[in-house]
Amino acid sequence: MKKIVLSFSYSQKLGRNLAKKLNCKFSMVKIKEFPDKEKLIQLNADVKNKQVIIVDSLYIPDEKILDICLTADTAKDLGAKQVILVAPYLCYLRQDKRFHTGESISSKTIAKIVSPFFSKLITVDPHLHRYKSLGIIYRLKTKVLTANYLIGEYIKKHYTNPVIIGPDEESYQWAEVIAKIAGAEVTVCKKTRFSSRKVKVLLKNNITIKGKEVIIVDDIISTAHTMIEAIKHVKKYKPVSITCIGVHGLFVENAYNKLKKAGADLIVTTNSVPHTTNKIDLSGLISKEI
Amino acid sequence: MKKIVLSFSYSQKLGRNLAKKLNCKFSMVKIKEFPDKEKLIQLNADVKNKQVIIVDSLYIPDEKILDICLTADTAKDLGAKQVILVAPYLCYLRQDKRFHTGESISSKTIAKIVSPFFSKLITVDPHLHRYKSLGIIYRLKTKVLTANYLIGEYIKKHYTNPVIIGPDEESYQWAEVIAKIAGAEVTVCKKTRFSSRKVKVLLKNNITIKGKEVIIVDDIISTAHTMIEAIKHVKKYKPVSITCIGVHGLFVENAYNKLKKAGADLIVTTNSVPHTTNKIDLSGLISKEI
Repeated sequence: MKKIVLSFSYSQKLGRNLAKKLNCKFSMVKIKEFPDKEKLIQLNADVKNKQVIIVDSLYIPDEKILDICLTADTAKDLGAKQVILVAPYLCYLRQDKRFHTGESISSKTIAKIVSPFFSKLITVDPHLHRYKSLGIIYRLKTKVLTANYLIGEYIKKHYTNPVIIGPDEESYQWAEVIAKIAGAEVTVCKKTRFSSRKVKVLLKNNITIKGKEVIIVDDIISTAHTMIEAIKHVKKYKPVSITCIGVHGLFVENAYNKLKKAGADLIVTTNSVPHTTNKIDLSGLISKEI
Repeated sequence: MKKIVLSFSYSQKLGRNLAKKLNCKFSMVKIKEFPDKEKLIQLNADVKNKQVIIVDSLYIPDEKILDICLTADTAKDLGAKQVILVAPYLCYLRQDKRFHTGESISSKTIAKIVSPFFSKLITVDPHLHRYKSLGIIYRLKTKVLTANYLIGEYIKKHYTNPVIIGPDEESYQWAEVIAKIAGAEVTVCKKTRFSSRKVKVLLKNNITIKGKEVIIVDDIISTAHTMIEAIKHVKKYKPVSITCIGVHGLFVENAYNKLKKAGADLIVTTNSVPHTTNKIDLSGLISKEI
């Protein structure tokens, strides 16, 4: 089946890379807005009888959810054989529980909205906490990829004396895997709460930081609070440098500058969410799954 | 079955009126936004075993479409017996055809997104042009109400010597019905295009305008271009006053001020879309359908 990659202005870089890897056509979807704020999607390429791969990074997701549904439905209407969603950053997954009375479990509803429009969903390191798999909420074929190997390889290539640090206990297992790939030592920041205002951060294993290149790794860099706390603590041990690596760099509320100010020498992310820190390209990883 | 009306800050006035008419509880849905722009819906009332009526005017619709789906899904999850959508202004209906190659027929996709979350949809004077009924695109029970009677009664009550004018030929049938209810004469502006730049407007029937209260009626006042053209033409006949009445007042791109400037003495709308011109309350009409 002939393939075609469709994407939107925001996510076009990854879309173009993916099309190159798949050796297929790339086409940008046009979004027009009417004076009454209704939007109109327009496909600019022939999709008939093709496998259509829609690439959209679902960060700041509300508008994008409609965009991908409208695009998929139009593609099907125009004769596409199959429509696949590539959402390297999958939104709304942290809302996996009713934390307070009356609250929506948004992850479920969003999955219900999106599922009927696609036959397959491919994503990278989704924030699965209470759900064991995406299949619990998404009613379509799902494929979860991980950037661990790419991150491990990136560290191996660019650092000579690295030590991997998970910024909190939740990230430990993940940091461990990356450390193994990078062939580096690993530790984790352990928070101990003394009162509502006093939190002490400790490093779990007794490993040497002094003179090493510290690499703090996490899946999502959002407000970066966790990473900033980790940086503050790790600095005391006098590492040669501090690098922050995140799979998904959302950099909410000026997080990028806050991280730099706190002492991050370098911040690296994958291109799951477009940002100047994107150094690790996911298109090769994703292309193998299509 | 016990009823409860849920609404959002934007549409709360109509929601509260409807709850009063139904003699049931009203509750405002809380919408919280996280730093990463994901939203969280919270219901503040018990919906278990109840008939839940969600009222939202779907003007500037994209965010609201997710709001109503999230709210409906949460209500069901919390034990609601039935969830009804009251969308007095129903969005995306003008996109009922692929006007250019590759374009989405958005009305269909939006209907597909919304339908699974509700058991019934109630709306007022939807802009049905190429669809004969809403049931063609919405897969749920639909009820189309009309504000014609309310508008006719409003005219009867507030004017002594009115003449009803449809601003273009499309609106004639509709103007005729209202005129009949109001017991007034009716005419319509007929456009004749002489070149791409020259359009002449004529009144269809030979009725007296001079000394009369002109009432121009249309279903949607969006940019108001059509109404403004009608005003300009009608003014020549020296009516006593000019009133513009629309079911749905969107007032896009400063349309309200443009209408006033063109010569509208009064602009009246129903409360299908919240606006200072709202003079005709739809809650009674809608309540009879629940």
